[in-house]
Amino acid sequence: MSLLVVGSVAFDAIETPFGRVERTVGGAATYFSLAASFLTRVNLVGVVGKDFTNEHEQVFRGRTVDLAGLERAEGKTFFWSGKYHDNLNDRTTLATDLNVFAEFRPKLPDSFRKSGYIFLANIDPTLQRSVLDQVAGKPKLVALDTMNYWIEGTPAELRKTLKQTQILMINDSETRQLSNEHNLLRAAKAIFKMGPKTLVIKRGEHGAMMVHGDSVFCVPAYPLDEIHDPTGAGDSFAGGFMGYLASAGKVNANSLRLAMVYGSVLGSFAVERFGLERLLKLKRSEITNRVRHFHKLTTFKL
Amino acid sequence: MSLLVVGSVAFDAIETPFGRVERTVGGAATYFSLAASFLTRVNLVGVVGKDFTNEHEQVFRGRTVDLAGLERAEGKTFFWSGKYHDNLNDRTTLATDLNVFAEFRPKLPDSFRKSGYIFLANIDPTLQRSVLDQVAGKPKLVALDTMNYWIEGTPAELRKTLKQTQILMINDSETRQLSNEHNLLRAAKAIFKMGPKTLVIKRGEHGAMMVHGDSVFCVPAYPLDEIHDPTGAGDSFAGGFMGYLASAGKVNANSLRLAMVYGSVLGSFAVERFGLERLLKLKRSEITNRVRHFHKLTTFKL
Repeated sequence: MSLLVVGSVAFDAIETPFGRVERTVGGAATYFSLAASFLTRVNLVGVVGKDFTNEHEQVFRGRTVDLAGLERAEGKTFFWSGKYHDNLNDRTTLATDLNVFAEFRPKLPDSFRKSGYIFLANIDPTLQRSVLDQVAGKPKLVALDTMNYWIEGTPAELRKTLKQTQILMINDSETRQLSNEHNLLRAAKAIFKMGPKTLVIKRGEHGAMMVHGDSVFCVPAYPLDEIHDPTGAGDSFAGGFMGYLASAGKVNANSLRLAMVYGSVLGSFAVERFGLERLLKLKRSEITNRVRHFHKLTTFKL
Repeated sequence: MSLLVVGSVAFDAIETPFGRVERTVGGAATYFSLAASFLTRVNLVGVVGKDFTNEHEQVFRGRTVDLAGLERAEGKTFFWSGKYHDNLNDRTTLATDLNVFAEFRPKLPDSFRKSGYIFLANIDPTLQRSVLDQVAGKPKLVALDTMNYWIEGTPAELRKTLKQTQILMINDSETRQLSNEHNLLRAAKAIFKMGPKTLVIKRGEHGAMMVHGDSVFCVPAYPLDEIHDPTGAGDSFAGGFMGYLASAGKVNANSLRLAMVYGSVLGSFAVERFGLERLLKLKRSEITNRVRHFHKLTTFKL
């Protein structure tokens, strides 16, 4: 089934201990779409400025990413700049120029209104909800990402949107902040009262944890020899996760677990090289191999 | 097979957001022995002072822990005091009074010399090696814990001891410091050149990772509703790990993986209550149940 994503398409300037890049295509919806496109058709809703040329659009070409919902507005594309510290876990944001993203009002083309799987990347919860309002009928699955800015700044709006959400996908500190609980299991229970029935906690180099009703599932981060740039890891995780579910066409205990594995695998590829570089060169067979290897990595016989 | 441990037996004063205790029996060898004793016979080598009474010794009674190697020296028992911060991950050490531990020279009773499995808890690497010198023949398996103090302070002595070690069991920052490599897979390769053929990296709330030759195995921390006191988690992990291997009597790819699971399970029980409280009440059947649950927690079908 087709998968709709709404979120940022951006230019990034990135510096890590392994190099730097002055201006490369990035953004949550970009990483998400590229990762998910290996598994399913993706309908992208976002906005870029006039400086986003056909050449930049090449990152989506030859993939099952439908750009009918990518608006081209007067002005400049969202620009983000960040520098990662030596441990790659901490980063300093150097610039966040919203540009055309500041006035972004998501508009779904008619052809997108029947998307069964929806991922609301980290944007204003009011805009996230406006996407759901434009969907025809009840979507099969809505997943949402958010951040401290919205948890603190627009809690009531976020709560309204969470009521329409089945899966919340955030990191541990956001989980603790939203629930006001330090313990992650208690935090999950508090969040389930807000709407979502599944909580996916992204923990960077420590993997991810999913709480789904009474069941808990943990995956490690795929161990890598080289990590060059963590940018987009969480969004690629989300793309792998939702892409797998949309391709499977069913949401149950095992498909959710496999989605966690596909998420981890896509996230692991994203960080191996700078920006989108590794995802752009990725082959479907490499994903399958890494999923199998992931199984070996976590299996034991009782 | 019997399992020998050398390390500290201590009095601890602990404060966490969930309470405090002024003086309770603790120490690495204590947590290790209690955890391992559910799975195998343990030979404990350590030292206490005259203030360590028969009443304190009760924590070992009724268990398969042989205290023939627990020396009683003139003076006071090792005393440690620490306070955990709200997140339970960070702690401040308030006091470390070595007392009789300062002059500790491990002496193995004759009955201990044939121990097949040996765990050298975190003490001076010279003393760790002196234990190996007293063992009759070649032990089946030697595992070692250490810390930044020895990695920085006595690197040459530590290297000598590592040459006689098959398993190194440390945390991520110690792994990075010892190997001078940030990436944990590269760190493992560097450490393998020092002697050990297996590296177990303890990551607290993020679980543990084992690198064994080319194979990597990851376990999450067992998700708990309540964590009252992280003291002894790593030593209980080591006790579960080595206790399982000694009980299995074989060291191979799957027994090492199961050892990781038993380690995580014993560590998870240790932190549920203050000090030794939970381990003292623990039943063997609870361990079996949690190991089975651990399997559910990490299993997925391809």
